[in-house]
Amino acid sequence: MIELFFKPESVAVIGASGTPGKLGYVIMKNLCDSDFAGEIYPVNPKSDEILGHKVHRSVTDIPGRVDLVVTALPTPKLTVMTMEACAQKGVKAVIIESAGFAEMGGEGKVFQEQIVEIAKKNNIRVMGPNCSGIVSRNIVTSIYPMTRKVPDGNVVLMGQSGLLAAGMASDIIENQSLNVSKVCSFGNKCDVNENDLLEYFGNEDGVDVISMYLETVSDGRNLTRIAKKVAAEKPVIFLSGGRTEAGAKAAMSHTGSIASNARIVEAAVKQTGMIMADDFTELKDFAKVFSTQPLPKGNRVAVITLAGSVGVNVSDLCAAHGLELPRLTPETTEKLKDVFDTPVGNPVDLYFSVTKIGFTKTLETTFPEAFRDPNIDAAVVILAGFKYTQEAVEKKIIQRIVREIGKPVVVCMIVGYNEYKNVIMNEMGKELPVFPSLISGVKALSKLCQYGMRKHSS
Amino acid sequence: MIELFFKPESVAVIGASGTPGKLGYVIMKNLCDSDFAGEIYPVNPKSDEILGHKVHRSVTDIPGRVDLVVTALPTPKLTVMTMEACAQKGVKAVIIESAGFAEMGGEGKVFQEQIVEIAKKNNIRVMGPNCSGIVSRNIVTSIYPMTRKVPDGNVVLMGQSGLLAAGMASDIIENQSLNVSKVCSFGNKCDVNENDLLEYFGNEDGVDVISMYLETVSDGRNLTRIAKKVAAEKPVIFLSGGRTEAGAKAAMSHTGSIASNARIVEAAVKQTGMIMADDFTELKDFAKVFSTQPLPKGNRVAVITLAGSVGVNVSDLCAAHGLELPRLTPETTEKLKDVFDTPVGNPVDLYFSVTKIGFTKTLETTFPEAFRDPNIDAAVVILAGFKYTQEAVEKKIIQRIVREIGKPVVVCMIVGYNEYKNVIMNEMGKELPVFPSLISGVKALSKLCQYGMRKHSS
Repeated sequence: MIELFFKPESVAVIGASGTPGKLGYVIMKNLCDSDFAGEIYPVNPKSDEILGHKVHRSVTDIPGRVDLVVTALPTPKLTVMTMEACAQKGVKAVIIESAGFAEMGGEGKVFQEQIVEIAKKNNIRVMGPNCSGIVSRNIVTSIYPMTRKVPDGNVVLMGQSGLLAAGMASDIIENQSLNVSKVCSFGNKCDVNENDLLEYFGNEDGVDVISMYLETVSDGRNLTRIAKKVAAEKPVIFLSGGRTEAGAKAAMSHTGSIASNARIVEAAVKQTGMIMADDFTELKDFAKVFSTQPLPKGNRVAVITLAGSVGVNVSDLCAAHGLELPRLTPETTEKLKDVFDTPVGNPVDLYFSVTKIGFTKTLETTFPEAFRDPNIDAAVVILAGFKYTQEAVEKKIIQRIVREIGKPVVVCMIVGYNEYKNVIMNEMGKELPVFPSLISGVKALSKLCQYGMRKHSS
Repeated sequence: MIELFFKPESVAVIGASGTPGKLGYVIMKNLCDSDFAGEIYPVNPKSDEILGHKVHRSVTDIPGRVDLVVTALPTPKLTVMTMEACAQKGVKAVIIESAGFAEMGGEGKVFQEQIVEIAKKNNIRVMGPNCSGIVSRNIVTSIYPMTRKVPDGNVVLMGQSGLLAAGMASDIIENQSLNVSKVCSFGNKCDVNENDLLEYFGNEDGVDVISMYLETVSDGRNLTRIAKKVAAEKPVIFLSGGRTEAGAKAAMSHTGSIASNARIVEAAVKQTGMIMADDFTELKDFAKVFSTQPLPKGNRVAVITLAGSVGVNVSDLCAAHGLELPRLTPETTEKLKDVFDTPVGNPVDLYFSVTKIGFTKTLETTFPEAFRDPNIDAAVVILAGFKYTQEAVEKKIIQRIVREIGKPVVVCMIVGYNEYKNVIMNEMGKELPVFPSLISGVKALSKLCQYGMRKHSS
C-alpha cells in the first residue's frame, strides 16, 4: 500500500490550477516536470485543461483507475468532502497537503478525526494533513517549486516538516549537496507515519541512508521494533523535535503533536542504534557522511593538519567524541622520516614539510601513507582557504587518495579567504563531506565510527 | 614593559632579508607595510639596504635606542647569541619567532632555558620562542604575509598558536569577518605569558573583547586572579587546548606544553567568568557576537523563523543551552493579530504571513514588535538562502531594525541556494553575527546571555 505513494501509475490532483503561483498549479507543474510516466488527472470544476492535461470535474468523474490523490484544498471541509469522493472512487492513497487540522486545535482537530474515520472505513492510506508530500525523481507533489530533477541518490529524508520537501529539498537538489533520492514530508501524520515509511524504505533497494525528523513518536513500541531492524542494515539518522518543554510547546502549534518525552526518545535511540542529530544541518550532514563514506571498523583516526594548534584542538574534540588518535606504525614513520624533521606523529602536522616542498607534494607523499596505516580507520583532514588548497582540490588530489584507499574521511575548513573557501567547499563537497568547523566534522565522523563499530561487532 | 611590544618607537629585525619569500623579508615587509611610524633597523651582516632601510651588521651597531627586537633566525644557537647582543645593547623587549626550542625537547629545551636566563639577568621581556608575534595596525611582526591593514577594531586575539597571527589573522582581516585590533601569538611563552597580556589588554582602552587560546596555564593562581578582574569588565573567551590525553600529547610536540589538567582549567573558567570556546571557529565567532552585540540583561529569547519545524528545533536548542522562550506580551499579540491567522506565538512563525504579504513586509511588521516586546532580551533570526532574503539583507532591513531596537541578535542560516547564502552571509556578516547552523548560533547567543546576566547581577 505504501508503494502507491511512491510508485503510483496514476495521480489525480484535486484543486489543480492553471494559474502560476497557486498551490494547485505548483503541484501540477512539479508533477509534470518530474519523470512521472503515468496518467495525470487534474481535478477542478472550473477548468478544461491544465498544463496539457484534461481536467475533470471531480475525482469520481475520472474514467481510469486512480492510484494516488494529491490535494491542497483551501478548507478542511472541502478536504473531508474530497475524502468521501476518494472513497467512492476506490482510491487507496491520498496526500493531504492543506493545513488547518490538528495543528490548529478545536474544529481542525475534529476535521482531522473525520478524515481518519473515512480512511479507516474505506481502507485508504492518508499522508498528512499539513505536509508537502513527496519529492523524488519519479514523482513530486510538493507545494514548493522545484527547479531541478531529484538525483538518483541513496538517501531518504523524511519527517514532520514541510521544510524537508521545500527549502531543504531545493537546497540539496540545487546545490547538489546531498545525494538524496526521496524526500517525504508527512506533517500531522494522521495515518501514514514513520513506522510505515521506515519499514518501506528499510526494504527498498537503493536506499542506503534514512534521515528522519519527528515531533512525536506515533507508536514507540513499533518504532523500536522496526527501527532496530532497519538500523541494523542501514543507518537511520534521527532528529527529535520537541524534546524540551519549549520545543514541545512549539511542536504543538506546528503539527499538533504532543511531543514525545525526551527520555523515551533517547531510550529508543539507544536500543535501536539510530543516530541522533541535534539540528537540521546535522540531519543533512550526517546523511552526507553516511551516504558517501565507507563504514569503518574502528574509531582510530589520523588527523591531517597544517597547524599544530588545530591538531591539538582536534585531538581534544576527537577524545570528547570517543575517537582515538593512535600512533602510526613504525613502518609508516620510517617511510615518512625524510619528509619531516622530527618523527611524524598523529596529528600529522604538515606545516614544516609544506614550507619545504609545498602543499601538493606534502599531501601526496604524507596523506596516503598515514591514511593507509593499519593503525588507522578514518581521517580528519583540515584545510584552509588558500590558493594552493583550491588548486589541490581542483586537481582532486585528496579526493583521489581517499577513493584509492577506501577508508572514510571528513574534511574540515578552517581560516583562509572566503573566495577560496567557497570554491573548496563547493568543489570538495561534490565528493566528500566538508564541514565549516572542527566541531561539526569531528562529531559527524564520530557518528560514522560508532555505527560502524556497532555493526561490525553484531 | 609589555607596552614595548605593542607600541615601540624603534624596532630591529635580526636576520632581515631582501629576498622575497625568506622569513626575514616577510617580517620586514609586514613591518614596513604597517602604520609603524618609528625607526626600523634591519640587521644582517651581509646586506646594505633592505626595503629602503639601512642595514646594520649587528644589533650593537645600531646607533639609536632599540625598543623591540624581532628575530626569526634559523638556529637556536644564533638566537641565544642574539639575546646576548640584545643584553649588551640594552634592549628590553624581544620577540623570538624561530622554532626548535622546548617544543622539540632535548637540546631545544636547553637553548630555551639559556634564553630565559639571559632575559632574567638583563631584565629583558621575551615573547616566544616558536611564535608569530604581533599583528596590529601599528606593528606587524608575523612571518605570514599580510595583504590588508588590520582594522581599528575592539577585539584582541591571543595565544599559543602561530595560526592566530597567520591564517586566522588573514582570514579575519581579508574577509572582514571580525573587528579585530590586535593578534598576538606567543608560542612557547618562555617569559611573556597570558597573565602579562591579559593584564595589559584588561587595562587598555578600546579593547572590548579578548579571545585567548592556551595549551598550558603558566600560573593558575595568577590567571584566576587576573582573569577574574578582567572578565568582570570585558568578556574573555577561552579555548583550552590539550584538555584530553590525546590533546595533551599533541600540545607537547606543538609548543612543548605539559597541558593543563582539564579540571583545573574548568574550575578557573567557572571562578573567573571567562567564556569557554570549544574550537577555533567558536573562539572567533563568540568574539564576533560579543564585539558587535549589546549585552542582554536576561536570557529571554524571541525566535523568528519561516518554518515551524525549525522553530521547534531552535526551541529545543535554546532550552538545552539555558535560554528561555517566553510568551510575547498581550500588547504585542494584539498589535500583530492582523498579520497572522492565529495568535502569534514564540517561535514567531512568519510562514503564513509571508505567503500572504511577502517576506519584507512580514519582517518589517512582525520582527520589530516581537523584538521590542518587554518580555524579550534577545533574538534568534533564522534566514534561508533565497532571493527575497538576499534582497531584504541588501536593503539592510534586519540590520536597521536591530540597530534601532538595540537588543542583541544572532542570525542562523538554514537551507536555500548557495548563491544567495554566500551573499547573505558576507553582507549580513559585516554587521551582525551570522552562523551556518542552528546549533552554532544558539550556543553563541547563550554565551552572551550568560555573561550579560552574570555581569548584571554582580
